[in-house]
Amino acid sequence: MNKEGLHQMLHPMKLIGLGGNKALNEKIANILHMPLLETSVHHFSDGEIAVNIAETVRGCDVFVIQSIQDPVNENFMELEIVCDALHRASAHRINCVVPYLAYSRSDTKSRSREPITAKLVANLLQLTGIDRLITLDLHASQIQGFYNIPVDHLHALPLLAQYFLDNGIATSDDEDVVIVSPDHSGTKLARNFATNFNAPIAIVDQRGAHYDDSVHDMIGDVKGKKCIIVDDLIDTGSRVASSTHSVLAAGATKVYVAASHALLSHDAVDVLNKLPIEQIVVTDTIKHEKYPDRIVRVSVDQLLARGIDYIYNDRSIHQIFDEQNRLK
Amino acid sequence: MNKEGLHQMLHPMKLIGLGGNKALNEKIANILHMPLLETSVHHFSDGEIAVNIAETVRGCDVFVIQSIQDPVNENFMELEIVCDALHRASAHRINCVVPYLAYSRSDTKSRSREPITAKLVANLLQLTGIDRLITLDLHASQIQGFYNIPVDHLHALPLLAQYFLDNGIATSDDEDVVIVSPDHSGTKLARNFATNFNAPIAIVDQRGAHYDDSVHDMIGDVKGKKCIIVDDLIDTGSRVASSTHSVLAAGATKVYVAASHALLSHDAVDVLNKLPIEQIVVTDTIKHEKYPDRIVRVSVDQLLARGIDYIYNDRSIHQIFDEQNRLK
Amino acid sequence: MNKEGLHQMLHPMKLIGLGGNKALNEKIANILHMPLLETSVHHFSDGEIAVNIAETVRGCDVFVIQSIQDPVNENFMELEIVCDALHRASAHRINCVVPYLAYSRSDTKSRSREPITAKLVANLLQLTGIDRLITLDLHASQIQGFYNIPVDHLHALPLLAQYFLDNGIATSDDEDVVIVSPDHSGTKLARNFATNFNAPIAIVDQRGAHYDDSVHDMIGDVKGKKCIIVDDLIDTGSRVASSTHSVLAAGATKVYVAASHALLSHDAVDVLNKLPIEQIVVTDTIKHEKYPDRIVRVSVDQLLARGIDYIYNDRSIHQIFDEQNRLK
Amino acid sequence: MNKEGLHQMLHPMKLIGLGGNKALNEKIANILHMPLLETSVHHFSDGEIAVNIAETVRGCDVFVIQSIQDPVNENFMELEIVCDALHRASAHRINCVVPYLAYSRSDTKSRSREPITAKLVANLLQLTGIDRLITLDLHASQIQGFYNIPVDHLHALPLLAQYFLDNGIATSDDEDVVIVSPDHSGTKLARNFATNFNAPIAIVDQRGAHYDDSVHDMIGDVKGKKCIIVDDLIDTGSRVASSTHSVLAAGATKVYVAASHALLSHDAVDVLNKLPIEQIVVTDTIKHEKYPDRIVRVSVDQLLARGIDYIYNDRSIHQIFDEQNRLK
Amino acid sequence: MNKEGLHQMLHPMKLIGLGGNKALNEKIANILHMPLLETSVHHFSDGEIAVNIAETVRGCDVFVIQSIQDPVNENFMELEIVCDALHRASAHRINCVVPYLAYSRSDTKSRSREPITAKLVANLLQLTGIDRLITLDLHASQIQGFYNIPVDHLHALPLLAQYFLDNGIATSDDEDVVIVSPDHSGTKLARNFATNFNAPIAIVDQRGAHYDDSVHDMIGDVKGKKCIIVDDLIDTGSRVASSTHSVLAAGATKVYVAASHALLSHDAVDVLNKLPIEQIVVTDTIKHEKYPDRIVRVSVDQLLARGIDYIYNDRSIHQIFDEQNRLK
Amino acid sequence: MNKEGLHQMLHPMKLIGLGGNKALNEKIANILHMPLLETSVHHFSDGEIAVNIAETVRGCDVFVIQSIQDPVNENFMELEIVCDALHRASAHRINCVVPYLAYSRSDTKSRSREPITAKLVANLLQLTGIDRLITLDLHASQIQGFYNIPVDHLHALPLLAQYFLDNGIATSDDEDVVIVSPDHSGTKLARNFATNFNAPIAIVDQRGAHYDDSVHDMIGDVKGKKCIIVDDLIDTGSRVASSTHSVLAAGATKVYVAASHALLSHDAVDVLNKLPIEQIVVTDTIKHEKYPDRIVRVSVDQLLARGIDYIYNDRSIHQIFDEQNRLK
Repeated sequence: MNKEGLHQMLHPMKLIGLGGNKALNEKIANILHMPLLETSVHHFSDGEIAVNIAETVRGCDVFVIQSIQDPVNENFMELEIVCDALHRASAHRINCVVPYLAYSRSDTKSRSREPITAKLVANLLQLTGIDRLITLDLHASQIQGFYNIPVDHLHALPLLAQYFLDNGIATSDDEDVVIVSPDHSGTKLARNFATNFNAPIAIVDQRGAHYDDSVHDMIGDVKGKKCIIVDDLIDTGSRVASSTHSVLAAGATKVYVAASHALLSHDAVDVLNKLPIEQIVVTDTIKHEKYPDRIVRVSVDQLLARGIDYIYNDRSIHQIFDEQNRLK
Repeated sequence: MNKEGLHQMLHPMKLIGLGGNKALNEKIANILHMPLLETSVHHFSDGEIAVNIAETVRGCDVFVIQSIQDPVNENFMELEIVCDALHRASAHRINCVVPYLAYSRSDTKSRSREPITAKLVANLLQLTGIDRLITLDLHASQIQGFYNIPVDHLHALPLLAQYFLDNGIATSDDEDVVIVSPDHSGTKLARNFATNFNAPIAIVDQRGAHYDDSVHDMIGDVKGKKCIIVDDLIDTGSRVASSTHSVLAAGATKVYVAASHALLSHDAVDVLNKLPIEQIVVTDTIKHEKYPDRIVRVSVDQLLARGIDYIYNDRSIHQIFDEQNRLK
Repeated sequence: MNKEGLHQMLHPMKLIGLGGNKALNEKIANILHMPLLETSVHHFSDGEIAVNIAETVRGCDVFVIQSIQDPVNENFMELEIVCDALHRASAHRINCVVPYLAYSRSDTKSRSREPITAKLVANLLQLTGIDRLITLDLHASQIQGFYNIPVDHLHALPLLAQYFLDNGIATSDDEDVVIVSPDHSGTKLARNFATNFNAPIAIVDQRGAHYDDSVHDMIGDVKGKKCIIVDDLIDTGSRVASSTHSVLAAGATKVYVAASHALLSHDAVDVLNKLPIEQIVVTDTIKHEKYPDRIVRVSVDQLLARGIDYIYNDRSIHQIFDEQNRLK
Repeated sequence: MNKEGLHQMLHPMKLIGLGGNKALNEKIANILHMPLLETSVHHFSDGEIAVNIAETVRGCDVFVIQSIQDPVNENFMELEIVCDALHRASAHRINCVVPYLAYSRSDTKSRSREPITAKLVANLLQLTGIDRLITLDLHASQIQGFYNIPVDHLHALPLLAQYFLDNGIATSDDEDVVIVSPDHSGTKLARNFATNFNAPIAIVDQRGAHYDDSVHDMIGDVKGKKCIIVDDLIDTGSRVASSTHSVLAAGATKVYVAASHALLSHDAVDVLNKLPIEQIVVTDTIKHEKYPDRIVRVSVDQLLARGIDYIYNDRSIHQIFDEQNRLK
Repeated sequence: MNKEGLHQMLHPMKLIGLGGNKALNEKIANILHMPLLETSVHHFSDGEIAVNIAETVRGCDVFVIQSIQDPVNENFMELEIVCDALHRASAHRINCVVPYLAYSRSDTKSRSREPITAKLVANLLQLTGIDRLITLDLHASQIQGFYNIPVDHLHALPLLAQYFLDNGIATSDDEDVVIVSPDHSGTKLARNFATNFNAPIAIVDQRGAHYDDSVHDMIGDVKGKKCIIVDDLIDTGSRVASSTHSVLAAGATKVYVAASHALLSHDAVDVLNKLPIEQIVVTDTIKHEKYPDRIVRVSVDQLLARGIDYIYNDRSIHQIFDEQNRLK
Repeated sequence: MNKEGLHQMLHPMKLIGLGGNKALNEKIANILHMPLLETSVHHFSDGEIAVNIAETVRGCDVFVIQSIQDPVNENFMELEIVCDALHRASAHRINCVVPYLAYSRSDTKSRSREPITAKLVANLLQLTGIDRLITLDLHASQIQGFYNIPVDHLHALPLLAQYFLDNGIATSDDEDVVIVSPDHSGTKLARNFATNFNAPIAIVDQRGAHYDDSVHDMIGDVKGKKCIIVDDLIDTGSRVASSTHSVLAAGATKVYVAASHALLSHDAVDVLNKLPIEQIVVTDTIKHEKYPDRIVRVSVDQLLARGIDYIYNDRSIHQIFDEQNRLK
């Protein structure tokens, strides 16, 4: 008997998919050829959540998949309560798989008397006795350091780069493409993404506290170029809108957008639909009823399924990074 | 200078009222002659909560009032995030005043693989570094033991008893009144409440797992009596409905209901309005847009304000209990 | 090789039986076909306890059986010290099997400046690094929530119900039997127990703080019926005495008593011997030198042995509950 | 108003004396001109302990005096439970004053699978949320490092040295006195004690595991000298007996014994009475019904009272040491 | 008596300056008109550190100033050991003032099997029981979230901006100045700094993993402009060197450098001396024997002294930010 | 498949040797037939340490060998940082093998305001999430109690005793040998060591705080005897020097020295070279560039390798002690 067989016998894998993004849960389960463990999560009329796990988890290695998407507090508490139930039910290890981890933008105290909610979330998650967090494209990589448990931080941006390459929008050595960071903080992300196309970068130079009423100059040259605005997430769409106007005003010929997490909150769909963007390429970490036009959703299912499989079997996830290292 | 003055100089009291039940927050503040500290709590379009506390709390004794009412997860996370902000802003002590503490009914593991969410809530609250919990009429008094920090557990039921006495519905030695527990677990509560009227008690003897399709006999005699059904909370109203039918079928002449917390979730207002109840006497720990007919809301404002004042000034809250001891 | 074999090879089971109730320890060991690991526990002349474990426990799954019976503080410290020794000796997992867990009645703060000793005990036990608590018929099921480690809470009352059925004292649908709760708090327990006989229930309605000098009315009808008074424990016997008098005064024909834990402290044996009770049916969680007449001790050995076996082998203990579900 | 007055107003001192050594509690209270707070500690017939503190401690600095003497587990649990009650009753700070701290001899793991009970005791004490430990003449000074809270470790041996000086048994530069360590571990203690008399030391050289059946040679010269055997505690008296025989066999003329803690367990009184010892000088950290003949009990009341006073008023206890430094 | 007087009486302030940067310690003490508490810190010949604090700190609010500069591990352990001593000596509150916090660049896990040393440092500091961290210009502001204790994060860059304004190098609305970020991550810092001069920014676009052998293009226009390269720290000087060459190659007329922390490790002095830089403006958070030519050290003494004073007296440090808000 | 094979498959052993004493690391690895895992530990020019572990450790049982020798703070932080990296890299268990554990002499608070650095070190090590400490001949065995994790404390002194026996310096029943303790605290150690030769002991009776300017008498007879001075460590050599002079002055014929840890700090080599000592027998827990003449280094490689092997395979290390029990 080999190691995988031994492990499976001693500590069987169980997959639980919570209500944040059920479509993605199912895709991952299909790839792993594992059923999602029957788990009823009931939200009562006063808002309280009740949980019923249909099957024993005693001694099992459980992977709980929950995207902390809108409504974030409901989805977060759902995850907390399920983890409490798993811990009390004597699960051997509890691994939280969180494709989108809300509150990551609240990662520092920029003014007096602000909370650091990303740290609060980290503390709350660890309190329930979970053993590991598996997540994707954090807003700031320092958030790994908010945790004392191991964090496996996977990267979805290479999947988006691959899409641009596969669909002939950009080549691996492309003089016509400029990767654009919509703000100053995103410069490093843009440089990483640009490496896939050996392309130059430019930055939208916002001066002022709010996107809507600030001056936005361009740093770097986009004239006559195809621009790909890259960001970690699209929330209300106002930053995309402002950046699109900036690059077009600076002479860009075509605008594409790439982002890992498509929050699309408030009236983002309307905002985005009005913009002269060729394509918006995002992942499927977040599920919505309605998407803007011209959106392409690249799935992270294979990436997360491989992560789960490697982690369960104690294989180094370094290999996943290595394969991705062709793309950044 | 006396002790109160010294304390006020060294560690000024600050009151924060969160969004769960703003009307009650303001009543308490008025009684204490203290302003509610300006605190903006913003729920973003994707559900994330942002907090801004307008005034310094450095070195202050802060009392944060938040009723964890519907929507319970939103209100709970609001409290957590504000406590994180207060802690990082160097508040001297953080006292949480929670008139209604949600999830208290999830206080044990009655089946395999259930969470104990009331304990989870206790752990999450303590994690943010709060120093004390002040709360009212817990579903089970054992929940105090879920906390390692001091819990000041105040009692609102005597206020309801006082209402019945003041309004001539019952006297302090009343042969015509029977106090009714709507289920087995409430027998002790009913006995305590009955002591105020020197009245006998009766129990609705439900046999079966669900209220709606169970047999409900009466234990104890209610024939020809005025019945006061007493409970710690009214949720969807189905238990009140079933109990009302049971006592009437057993010959009761009039039915009253007394309960500390009026959750009134789902279609409780409609359910209650259809019942032949004289009056429903509750407290104002929970705020709604709409109430059932014939409801009376007795305020807990004086009780909580006195609790805050006594605790801030290191006076024993035993005295509050003593005064209440005339009523139980 | 199957899972059980693998587990036994990697983390052998070791059984330790401490001095609280050695007879029960040995019965459990016999059922499991496992020797009790030789452990010398010495109480020095000044009261200090010394421990010597004769055999290696490195990497083993240890189950330590200790009933925290009289003298409770000695037996509790014995358990603590042995768990400290096991932890420092590199045991893989330490499972505490506690048939009777003392201090469970101190589960809330009913007056100012009271301790919550059941919570203190929970904290002290968890501090030594134990992994799990297995216990029986807690005074309040909320005590499970005092623990952050998994608690496997088994139920012995169905064994007592079975005794009444097996010995023809009651049938599974018995019009002649009434199950009596000796106080208000026990109503739910009485209802659960009554379900085994499809019997009605009655409650001894004590008014006053102390059993001896209070008025005790009956709620519910016991006239001409065979009564089984059911409680979680018998301490000094005064509550049994008072309840027996109440049900007889109310016209009961015969009185039986059923209780999980027979503390029989102070002069309980004398008190009980003077009462006109047909039989007192208890379990053997607590060992005494001398028992009252007409007592029947139903053993929990099979129940605990099965619990240990299922837990060691990661089988769901749900099945134990299911089989018991015929009886409550 | 000065600092002492301010402190007394903000956080009044409260003294609690538990049942270990009530005589000493009262002496300390008298010196401090403070009443002992009325605290009822009841040991039930099954051994459980109940506590009732008669007066508010909210916001107070409480000093709990408890000697963990025989029966050590009862006295220890009494202290634990009172501290839990004080913490839940919102005491400002809890200071444990423990004249004799049991289990200090179990301070290392000398064989496989031994506990380190002194560390367990340290962890259990700290768990209840105490702020400080004040204790006397620990068996090993390293035990201070078992605690993360501040430990104020006072020294009683100088009081015993003072007795010998005051009563003309030894002078501060005495050629006729030899200080004897009854075992190898006590050599440093003997040297410290000898400094008070500028005297030489000798060591009883025990070879073998048990005192009773070992060879005991003397290292160092005691011939024709007055010997003072010094130890941190006297337990069963067998070590004193053996040492007395050794020094007499080696030619000592007179034998005295000095020890901080007089456990006098088992038949120590008889053992000591049979020995040709001039005087046994101990402190009153431990209270007994009966003492051996020729014992002198020097009180630590002044020392502990000063410690409490200095600590309460934030004065350095260094000064206490300095005054003692004339004696060691 | 006012609040400041009360606080000073109850919990006197004590200042301790450790060996990292003694010159700065003394400047701060002078501004506060407080002596540095005599503290001997001895490094033994084998490298162990011994500490002796000459004066009582019982009940005091202690501020320990230590710059974790080279040798960072020695200076860090010095701080740890002093905090342990202060905690055991019953200090009321321990505030660590760390002008330069080493290891802040190790704030994320960028490759498999890397530590997050900035988090480790946070955990180690918090373990000793400190109450607060006061620090300056962290490498990433997210590091605040590595702490659960309050962090007061002060900003020194505005002091550097003030220097450029005061010395006529740049004006508050300067068309001739470009603020240059030496790498992608520093873009936001550069934008903040540029706001003081209403100036545009440019970024050195490094492509490749190491500064020395990478291609460095400029993004943004520096031709004919005076450039101020801004960074949080200067380590070996290689990034400054490379950036200087890049901006000059792109046509800049003059080069200035501004950085908060001057590590100047390895041969940085030589490297910098060879560069055609007009001035290097840094703070005095780090002390060296030798500095490069043309360096200007702006002191943070007033800033830290005000921080200490405000924090000790529970005044909001918001006011410090407000005054600085004219400069960023 | 047997247990060893199963364990190796599920949780492979990985050995890491850090920079404290690389020669010893390699000897241990050779005995275990295991490669040392390639680990680059880089000390940057400013003193920061960076770590790169070349191979996956996911799911592995890692043994990290690091002697905390001079420079102790560097070596200690190296160990801390590597353990942080291992924990974040999902190692299954982290076992620290520390042949020499620095700061062990700082094991108590002997004066006001001293740290207990050995406890601080214990807390810092445990904080990184290590599972076990394996160490050798601690300065005080009580230090085991500073840890809550299991400590496997091995003994090297028997190896030194064996050397004396094997080389004919002493026999197992030797009338010509006296074992000498250089101070009072070492008397017990000397007695243990003497048992190997059935020899008497003597103590150097230092009176005064510092070795250099104190009076040193001998207690016990060394006239005409071969003396072996035994200690746990040799630091600067001044204690050895002083003791050597004392025993020679008292008539000893030959002097040998035995000590577990050879710190040899400051000018110890010169000091020792000037002494008329026959041989200095130490272990190789500490590595130096230069040793004194006549030193013999007995290796602990076999002892530690066996410890690692037994612990990895869950075999009782009691057997190691048993074999050593012939020697003490």
